[in-house]
Amino acid sequence: MTVTLDELPIRDDLRGQTPYGAPQAPLPVALNVNENTHPVPTEVADDIADAIAQALRGVNRYPDREFLSLREGFAQYLGHGLEPAQIWAGNGSNEVLQHLLQAFAGPGRTVFGFEPTYSMYRLLTRGVGSQWIGGTRGHDYTVSAQDAADQVARARPDVVFLCAPNNPTGTPLPLDVVEAVYDATDGIVIVDEAYEEFAPRDAPSAVTLLGGRPRLAVSRTMSKAFAFAGARVGYLAADPALIDALRLVRLPYHLSALTQAAAVAALRHADTMLKMVDEIVAQRDRMSATLEALGYQVHESWTNFVLFGGVADPAATWQALYDRGVLIRDIGIPGHLRVTAGTEDETTAFLEALADVGSR
Amino acid sequence: MTVTLDELPIRDDLRGQTPYGAPQAPLPVALNVNENTHPVPTEVADDIADAIAQALRGVNRYPDREFLSLREGFAQYLGHGLEPAQIWAGNGSNEVLQHLLQAFAGPGRTVFGFEPTYSMYRLLTRGVGSQWIGGTRGHDYTVSAQDAADQVARARPDVVFLCAPNNPTGTPLPLDVVEAVYDATDGIVIVDEAYEEFAPRDAPSAVTLLGGRPRLAVSRTMSKAFAFAGARVGYLAADPALIDALRLVRLPYHLSALTQAAAVAALRHADTMLKMVDEIVAQRDRMSATLEALGYQVHESWTNFVLFGGVADPAATWQALYDRGVLIRDIGIPGHLRVTAGTEDETTAFLEALADVGSR
Repeated sequence: MTVTLDELPIRDDLRGQTPYGAPQAPLPVALNVNENTHPVPTEVADDIADAIAQALRGVNRYPDREFLSLREGFAQYLGHGLEPAQIWAGNGSNEVLQHLLQAFAGPGRTVFGFEPTYSMYRLLTRGVGSQWIGGTRGHDYTVSAQDAADQVARARPDVVFLCAPNNPTGTPLPLDVVEAVYDATDGIVIVDEAYEEFAPRDAPSAVTLLGGRPRLAVSRTMSKAFAFAGARVGYLAADPALIDALRLVRLPYHLSALTQAAAVAALRHADTMLKMVDEIVAQRDRMSATLEALGYQVHESWTNFVLFGGVADPAATWQALYDRGVLIRDIGIPGHLRVTAGTEDETTAFLEALADVGSR
Repeated sequence: MTVTLDELPIRDDLRGQTPYGAPQAPLPVALNVNENTHPVPTEVADDIADAIAQALRGVNRYPDREFLSLREGFAQYLGHGLEPAQIWAGNGSNEVLQHLLQAFAGPGRTVFGFEPTYSMYRLLTRGVGSQWIGGTRGHDYTVSAQDAADQVARARPDVVFLCAPNNPTGTPLPLDVVEAVYDATDGIVIVDEAYEEFAPRDAPSAVTLLGGRPRLAVSRTMSKAFAFAGARVGYLAADPALIDALRLVRLPYHLSALTQAAAVAALRHADTMLKMVDEIVAQRDRMSATLEALGYQVHESWTNFVLFGGVADPAATWQALYDRGVLIRDIGIPGHLRVTAGTEDETTAFLEALADVGSR
């Protein structure tokens, strides 16, 4: 006695849509969604488990709605003199970005991003009833400060997304682009630094630009560098007034006491986690070098993944890798595939499988 | 070098607003937000901690986007032959309700509820850009099937909230009201059973009405009966097609692996947790009887709290209790205050403090 979705009074703009989502296939080598494939080290996991066990004693009470300990942890981790009043967090950086759009976009407003970029920007934009405006990149997926500012000035968006480095291309974004875009708009500028920890250590973060730029927000995630995709913790830094705006749109108590405890404990082990990042960066660079040696066109990456072109038939190569137990991602760019840097063994497995496929 | 919120390009409909939130004051006896004041029993907390420690081993990977184990757990707990395909969950029942409004309300649509009722309905409605329509209740806060159907038929809303039993009044809602309202609208009918476990055991839940009513959704929370407010777990049961609509609006991976593990483990101890509910119900009934003996007008409650009238100056009484270390809630109904049933000691502390205040 069930009906179909179309028979329900669902919103017209949702009719005919399908849910977002990469396939979750149980393959031995899963390098498709840019996870950190290294498990959290045992000593770190034990400390997190202890912190959660402690939090469970008071789990009958609502959590700290202001998640102050966690904001202190993020402020300290980000450095540059940031204060807890400049920090916000959510269940994954998607929720943090959604809060920004709920406060500063919404119905009747527009949101801009340089494509190709993280596909959730467009979905989040549609989800709050705003209109998406897609900007363009150069042939190597870079965008210059002048071109970026010109495009933004013409589009006059309410919110601009800058993915730095960019997903799914891995492309670095110099800070002069952020500065130029900020000056070219009266709207909110979001720099999404989900993969920032995989950039060269001496490359400055956009958090260094926050002073004097109250319309700038820099988002991060614990999913990648902290191997915490399953815990769903994203955060951002911005002017305290901008943070106040997010308090108006978040659901009360949106961050559970268990999430807060887990993230605070994980942040105490930042040094250990960042050593793991160095390992991943080494595998990424090995992957890029080998792909190039195999004759593929490899795009510069400051992330934990590599986009490579020169693939004659991406769908066929994707399937051939799948059949060999290796899951990567066809993100819809003609002639290209995207692969996450894994452990040394996983990276080797991918490269060997691809060499095997390529020789056929 | 910061600005004020008004200087930022925030949405016009948010200007001048203040964030939702009951005060979080560290008083010895906190009976203000209808928490379960009993901590999770140690043996249950230990089992949950073990389940989370296990989940931490894979926390570097994204969680099961479909949270299948958790949906199985809720289906089994709710009974009545429900299947996992009929279950949805979120970070607190507020998020589950938000998903419903994102799919079936949103800009240009209307949402209806009988006031006074849970204040988040109005805030969630505004948050998705819909218009709130407030219906009326009788003087004792009940609403009859005929009156409810007439009001809904006149208002023609896209979504109706029925809070059963009602917060902040505690009032039971007979199932004939649900049936009549369902028949009076082509929209979605949400029965919010956040406090259902505190109703008499032989009072049927609205989940018994789901068959043949694909526009009906029955929401629940683990915050109250399962003493899990800090873990943020809400859920609902509905037709599988309605669940499909929620997949279109939820953020990917919205439920963390830790939340899923914690909730699945807690559900295994439903019997233990429901025994705690019996204790709370006994304290609620003692509270009601004593308040009546003290001369207050006590409203019938099927929840874990009591609304009482006949308070000459609610703000003064609230403050006098606060000064005695007892935190309750002034929910803005003239001459009334609301108090959560606590442990035996907490309930005694409240009743003694009130008797002390009342004699002045």
